[in-house]
Amino acid sequence: MPRQKPNHSKPFTHGPRRPQRPSRRKPETDGLTIFGLHAVEAALSNPNRPVLRLLATENAAHRLGALIAKRNLTPEQVLPKDLDRLLGPDTVHQGVLLEAGPLPPVSLEDIDPNGILLVLDQVTDPHNVGAALRSAAAFGAAGLVVTERHSPPLSGVLAKAASGALDLVPIVEVKNLAQALAELGERGVMRLGLAEQADSALEEIEMTRPVAFVLGAEGKGLRQLTRERCDCLCRISTASALTSLNVSNAAAIAMHWARLKTKDA
Amino acid sequence: MPRQKPNHSKPFTHGPRRPQRPSRRKPETDGLTIFGLHAVEAALSNPNRPVLRLLATENAAHRLGALIAKRNLTPEQVLPKDLDRLLGPDTVHQGVLLEAGPLPPVSLEDIDPNGILLVLDQVTDPHNVGAALRSAAAFGAAGLVVTERHSPPLSGVLAKAASGALDLVPIVEVKNLAQALAELGERGVMRLGLAEQADSALEEIEMTRPVAFVLGAEGKGLRQLTRERCDCLCRISTASALTSLNVSNAAAIAMHWARLKTKDA
Repeated sequence: MPRQKPNHSKPFTHGPRRPQRPSRRKPETDGLTIFGLHAVEAALSNPNRPVLRLLATENAAHRLGALIAKRNLTPEQVLPKDLDRLLGPDTVHQGVLLEAGPLPPVSLEDIDPNGILLVLDQVTDPHNVGAALRSAAAFGAAGLVVTERHSPPLSGVLAKAASGALDLVPIVEVKNLAQALAELGERGVMRLGLAEQADSALEEIEMTRPVAFVLGAEGKGLRQLTRERCDCLCRISTASALTSLNVSNAAAIAMHWARLKTKDA
Repeated sequence: MPRQKPNHSKPFTHGPRRPQRPSRRKPETDGLTIFGLHAVEAALSNPNRPVLRLLATENAAHRLGALIAKRNLTPEQVLPKDLDRLLGPDTVHQGVLLEAGPLPPVSLEDIDPNGILLVLDQVTDPHNVGAALRSAAAFGAAGLVVTERHSPPLSGVLAKAASGALDLVPIVEVKNLAQALAELGERGVMRLGLAEQADSALEEIEMTRPVAFVLGAEGKGLRQLTRERCDCLCRISTASALTSLNVSNAAAIAMHWARLKTKDA
């Protein structure tokens, strides 16, 4: 089914920046490769996204024509096989590859304090983080908080799985998640940790906004200090204890539920 | 967080078989490679799953000890690097690889007629089908229906993403999906097609069981004839039309909702 084109007339705005801090990320993760029509479309539509180089087939350049003109870009025309060679034959690039710069860093203070937040505690799988980010965009989440370490780079596989959401949802990378959760608590955010073995069911909790859902990695779950900083731990009501939900599916269910059961504060 | 071990004391049972029909699948997709502790654990626990060969590190063999003894197997002891070589260095095999035979085919008649069904119309991405299957297991779905063509093989990436659910949820492969949907309709199954541009919202529909959620592939969505065989098309209420949900996230939300809003017929 055709999806509506992203319309970024209201990109998220950045508040005052925090003082520069040294990043532990490797420098090469600062630039990123974005491929696939939706992801590239969203990146070009985001005025905060620096564009370094655009490679596109004739067809793809045609489809992205208005955005390319608006950005005043001259794409390098390529054949599909050129992109196959650059990205590997199994990559669904849809005829377009964008080399882009990183977005300006976002801090917790920059995020709309009344929305739904998603917090991922060292979730390393880029498919999962990308899919969770995509659902965050669909449910209008105010932001995604990830740990600076043990999170996948905000590029490549993650960007493709996010299907453009990398340019739609503000992402805050924090050094110390426990401290970030404490800060959110001070701002009145209800911090709900999702844990399979929790006694409370998500569906029975009196939820208020702003709310942050905190999810951990497959197998490991939430770290001890992360749990301690949550106001409540709860589980999604499933039918069977034999299998758990994957983290992006759990995040999507939680955000869907929160949108139905809460209103903006 | 530790997950409970699969307990297959009540595996799904098979009803009378349909007459043998020629399969369009390539023969090599009949045997399959299953890796990762949870997936292998579930396969070994499923008495219907033929085991051809088991490769395990000392640690993994120890963890699977009870099941290995029950199956009367002698695993070939390997080092992690041997499995890296066989499966590729980026595969999270957790020290275990199972070469297994296919499960006996399941037909629509074999499936519990009162449950929640998931129907995927030519969804090709193995990560997505695997994740959807995993959520189907978590929500106790009665079965997954897929098209025989344009579906990923029930092995490898799909098996790992399904985290054991391949051996928990009966999967029906059908030649003709429109016909299968017609059959489900005759059996009183409410067939709900999920389509972003539908007028009705999933959350406002009077849902009854048995219910089947029908989802299409990314971009393409549901085929015309598939739509026509649905009792109703509906969309999941999202906040933004800028992005759509990925298919496994949409399936998880729908099954979670159905479990809360319906009872067994």
